[in-house]
Amino acid sequence: MRHTIIGVMGPGEGATGEDCNVAATLGELIAKEGWVLLTGGRSVGVMEAATSAASAAGGLTIGVLPGSDYTNASTSLRIAVLTGMGEARNNINVLTSDIVIACGMNSGTASEAALTIKARRPLILLNQDHITVSFFRRLNENVRVAANVQEAIRIARELLSTPTR
Amino acid sequence: MRHTIIGVMGPGEGATGEDCNVAATLGELIAKEGWVLLTGGRSVGVMEAATSAASAAGGLTIGVLPGSDYTNASTSLRIAVLTGMGEARNNINVLTSDIVIACGMNSGTASEAALTIKARRPLILLNQDHITVSFFRRLNENVRVAANVQEAIRIARELLSTPTR
Amino acid sequence: MRHTIIGVMGPGEGATGEDCNVAATLGELIAKEGWVLLTGGRSVGVMEAATSAASAAGGLTIGVLPGSDYTNASTSLRIAVLTGMGEARNNINVLTSDIVIACGMNSGTASEAALTIKARRPLILLNQDHITVSFFRRLNENVRVAANVQEAIRIARELLSTPTR
Amino acid sequence: MRHTIIGVMGPGEGATGEDCNVAATLGELIAKEGWVLLTGGRSVGVMEAATSAASAAGGLTIGVLPGSDYTNASTSLRIAVLTGMGEARNNINVLTSDIVIACGMNSGTASEAALTIKARRPLILLNQDHITVSFFRRLNENVRVAANVQEAIRIARELLSTPTR
Repeated sequence: MRHTIIGVMGPGEGATGEDCNVAATLGELIAKEGWVLLTGGRSVGVMEAATSAASAAGGLTIGVLPGSDYTNASTSLRIAVLTGMGEARNNINVLTSDIVIACGMNSGTASEAALTIKARRPLILLNQDHITVSFFRRLNENVRVAANVQEAIRIARELLSTPTR
Repeated sequence: MRHTIIGVMGPGEGATGEDCNVAATLGELIAKEGWVLLTGGRSVGVMEAATSAASAAGGLTIGVLPGSDYTNASTSLRIAVLTGMGEARNNINVLTSDIVIACGMNSGTASEAALTIKARRPLILLNQDHITVSFFRRLNENVRVAANVQEAIRIARELLSTPTR
Repeated sequence: MRHTIIGVMGPGEGATGEDCNVAATLGELIAKEGWVLLTGGRSVGVMEAATSAASAAGGLTIGVLPGSDYTNASTSLRIAVLTGMGEARNNINVLTSDIVIACGMNSGTASEAALTIKARRPLILLNQDHITVSFFRRLNENVRVAANVQEAIRIARELLSTPTR
Repeated sequence: MRHTIIGVMGPGEGATGEDCNVAATLGELIAKEGWVLLTGGRSVGVMEAATSAASAAGGLTIGVLPGSDYTNASTSLRIAVLTGMGEARNNINVLTSDIVIACGMNSGTASEAALTIKARRPLILLNQDHITVSFFRRLNENVRVAANVQEAIRIARELLSTPTR
C-alpha cells in the first residue's frame, strides 16, 4: 500500500541548464513508472525541473522544505512537508526515499549523497563528473553511476526488485 | 494544486477506546472531504485508527515517523516520511498541517498542541476534558473546541474557507 | 566528568516581570550550585534573565538557539548551540537537561514541559497557576511543583541524588 | 564572553590509526589555544581521540550526540548535547562551530564537510587525499587544506582573526 518514493537531489540556484533538462526528463519518467517523486521542494533548479515535469506527467510530488511556510516552494508540489529546520532536513529527504538519485552537484547535494550512503539507502549518480564519481565510490563501492536518465530508471527498477529494507 | 493536509494528533499506546473510535470516524470523514490525513504514523492508538479508516475510505495518508525505518509504521500509510529524529518530528507534523486536530491527550499530543499554537496554525480540540480545554484556551484564545467529529469537520471547513497563510 | 545541566524554560517576549525575577534568582542559584544552565538562548524574557544572572554568578551558560546565527542570542551565553531548526530544537533542550524547570508559561514552554514528560526527564513547575499544575500532573503524576526558587533548587538536589538515567 | 568553538569531524568506527593520532594532537592543541572542542560526541575514532586529548589538556569539550541518552558517548565530554535526531544532528555540529576541521573521511564526515560549505562556515581539510581535496575545493574554492596539525591551528588562528560572522 505504501508508495515507492524516489528522491531526486540536485542544485537549486546554481543548477546548470543540463542539470535541469536531465532532472525534467527524470521527473517525467519517475511519474510514468508510478513512483512518487521527492525533492527538497524549492521552486528553483533541479527541484523545480523534476517536480514540474513529474506533476505534468500526472505523478504525485512531495517536497521536503527547509522553511516553515510556502515561500519559495514549487507550485507543482502536491504534498509540501514543512520542516522549518533548514539543511538538517536533508537527512529526512534521504531516509524517506527508497532510492536517491543525485543529479548535478553542489554542497547541499553533496551532503545528501553522503547522508544516503550513511543511511544505507541506494544512491545513483547522474550527470556527474569523474572526481565526484571517484569521491563517492570510495565512500561506498556500491554507489551506482548512470550514463543517462534511461539508465538511471533501469537501475532504479533493478534496485527496487531486490529489496533490502 | 497543493493538497489540503489535516493533522490528527493523539495518543499511541495509551489511547482509550473512545479516542480510537473518534479518530476512526475523523479519519474517514477527512478522506471523504478530499483532504489528506497526516499523523505521527505509528501503528497504534489514534494514529492507526485514523490512518486505517482514512485509507479504507480512499484517502491519501501521510505518516511523519519518529524512526528511520518502517518498524512500527502503520501499514495503511501511503506516504511514510522517515525523520529519524524522535519527538523533534512533532514540529514537522504541526508545520505541515493546514489544521491540527488533537484527539485524546498525553504528553506527546500536548507537545503537538502547544507547538501548533506556537506555529500559529489553527488548533481544534476534540474529545478533551475541561482542564485540557482551559489550559490551551489560555495559551491562545483562538483555540477551537469541537463537541464531536462532525463539528470538528465543520470547523475545519470554516477555517479552510478563511485562509490566513 | 560530565557537567550536570539544568534546563530553565520559560516565555520570551511574553514573560511577566515576576517570571523574569524568579528566573534571575533561579539562574544565580543554579550557578552557585556548580550546575550548568541551559536555556533556549534568546536575549529576552526568562531565557535572558536566567542566563545573565547565572553568568554574573560565574556559571557556565548554554543556549540552544532556534536560529542559525547569533541574531537574538543572549550576550551572556558562554556556549551558543546553533540548531537552525526553529521550535524542533525544544526537544534538544529537554533531552540535554538532567532536570527541566518550567518558569512561567506560554505555548513554547508548554511544548517543552510536555516533551520533558515524554522523554522521562524530571520536570519541576515553578511560578505556575492551578490549571497548569493540574494539566501537567495529569500527564504524569511525578511532575514536581516548587513554591519558590529555593524549593526548586532543593527538589533538584534531591532528584540528582537519586539518579535514574 | 562567548567561547570560540572548533568542530573536529571525522570517522568513528572506521577511523584509521593515523586519523586518531592526528585527532588527538589536534584536540590537545585546540584546548591549549583556549578554544572549545566540539565533536559528534561518540566514544570511538576521531571523536574519542580528539575529545579525550582535549579534556586531558584541560579544555572544555562538547559532544553533539545522535542519540537521546549517554549510550556510546565519550566519557571525556564535559557537555553532552543529546539531540535524538541521528545524522540530522550533523548540521548542528557545523552551525555551532566557528571553524570546522575534517580529519579523516567517511560518509558522515563528508556530509559534515559539505554542510559546512553550505552554511558558509570555514572548512579546513586535514589528513585528506587528493580526490577528497579536489572534490571539496570544487564545491567551494575557499576550502583550506592543512598539511599537518600545526598548520591547521595556524589557519584557524588566521580565520578567527578575520571575522566574517
